[in-house]
Amino acid sequence: MPRSSSWRSYRPGSRTGAGVADEPASRPRGAPKPAGAASPRATVRVLGLDPGSQNTGFGVVEAGPAGTRYVASGTIRAGSGEFAARLQAIYAGVGALLAEHRPQEIAVERVFVHRNPDSALKLGQARGAALCATFAGGATLHEYSPREIKLAVVGTGGADKAQVQAMVKALLGLDGRLGADAADALAIALCHAHSRATALVLRAQGVR
Amino acid sequence: MPRSSSWRSYRPGSRTGAGVADEPASRPRGAPKPAGAASPRATVRVLGLDPGSQNTGFGVVEAGPAGTRYVASGTIRAGSGEFAARLQAIYAGVGALLAEHRPQEIAVERVFVHRNPDSALKLGQARGAALCATFAGGATLHEYSPREIKLAVVGTGGADKAQVQAMVKALLGLDGRLGADAADALAIALCHAHSRATALVLRAQGVR
Repeated sequence: MPRSSSWRSYRPGSRTGAGVADEPASRPRGAPKPAGAASPRATVRVLGLDPGSQNTGFGVVEAGPAGTRYVASGTIRAGSGEFAARLQAIYAGVGALLAEHRPQEIAVERVFVHRNPDSALKLGQARGAALCATFAGGATLHEYSPREIKLAVVGTGGADKAQVQAMVKALLGLDGRLGADAADALAIALCHAHSRATALVLRAQGVR
Repeated sequence: MPRSSSWRSYRPGSRTGAGVADEPASRPRGAPKPAGAASPRATVRVLGLDPGSQNTGFGVVEAGPAGTRYVASGTIRAGSGEFAARLQAIYAGVGALLAEHRPQEIAVERVFVHRNPDSALKLGQARGAALCATFAGGATLHEYSPREIKLAVVGTGGADKAQVQAMVKALLGLDGRLGADAADALAIALCHAHSRATALVLRAQGVR
């Protein structure tokens, strides 16, 4: 699918050279998932997703032993058409992200409760569409609670949006404007990268 | 995908001869959607879907000028695994239905409000997964309100589950047990078939 006008990618040129987009992932898209997924020692591409019925934020980072590097981020806009058309936009948008960035690991926020049943239904459908689009690529799916994500990125589970946004920019060395949805998605990707790194250290020390 | 053990199909032998399963649909799966979709005069295969986070009912009928004929019905069980695995089961299950029955038109219930936000979120994700699975086949998607479905099948918008179930069996000439999810899905398919037939008569009379 060609990138449509409903996409808005945040890509500082210095961080997204042609090499990043052209670099083949270690496992081709569509290949069956290997038994152990990607090794924690290898550099892996992580896609963070923040699905919403109107805007689905995404953030792609490369996580490896040398640290975590920004690749891309932005927002998939579901548009203002009929509801099925909006779901299709999310589904196709996430599919296009997978084709472009070939992440080996995908992280999403775990959703628990919602105050408004109507919003919950809409969010649920958007989340279902986004998750289904990830099934084809063979990437592993990881879920984190909002508290885990804030803890990993800001250091406190009660951090607010602005703190998350500022820390995401600081951790990835981004300057310039970063949309709220993209920042949330990058925070989810960073949380997963952090969780991988912790697992690596513990494994190296023989703790688990 | 082979049919897994989580499927339960209701198929009275007399109504689902080998001819039905082998008969190619008029438009192959994956082909681009034709501009006008299927003509109301032609016989079309309609898939009714009743998505749920645990059970997704399905019902396939053939609707044409000579009436509506039962093809198949049953339930896709999402299983008791992790939530993403359940969504994947729904997504794959609906995909397998499309591959097997090649419907040209798909009908689902329009969902408005829900009392419980948590249930709404789960239902929404299941619905998103089911709808996304239909996008690949090129079939047209149609939504009907619960009231429209009951009106079409029972003749009153306030009909209860048992009345819907009994009328579905009577209208399609089914005897034997019919699961509640499958009955609801067949009711949705019948509602769409009825709506098509009405449109056909009105068009023939020059009303629209």
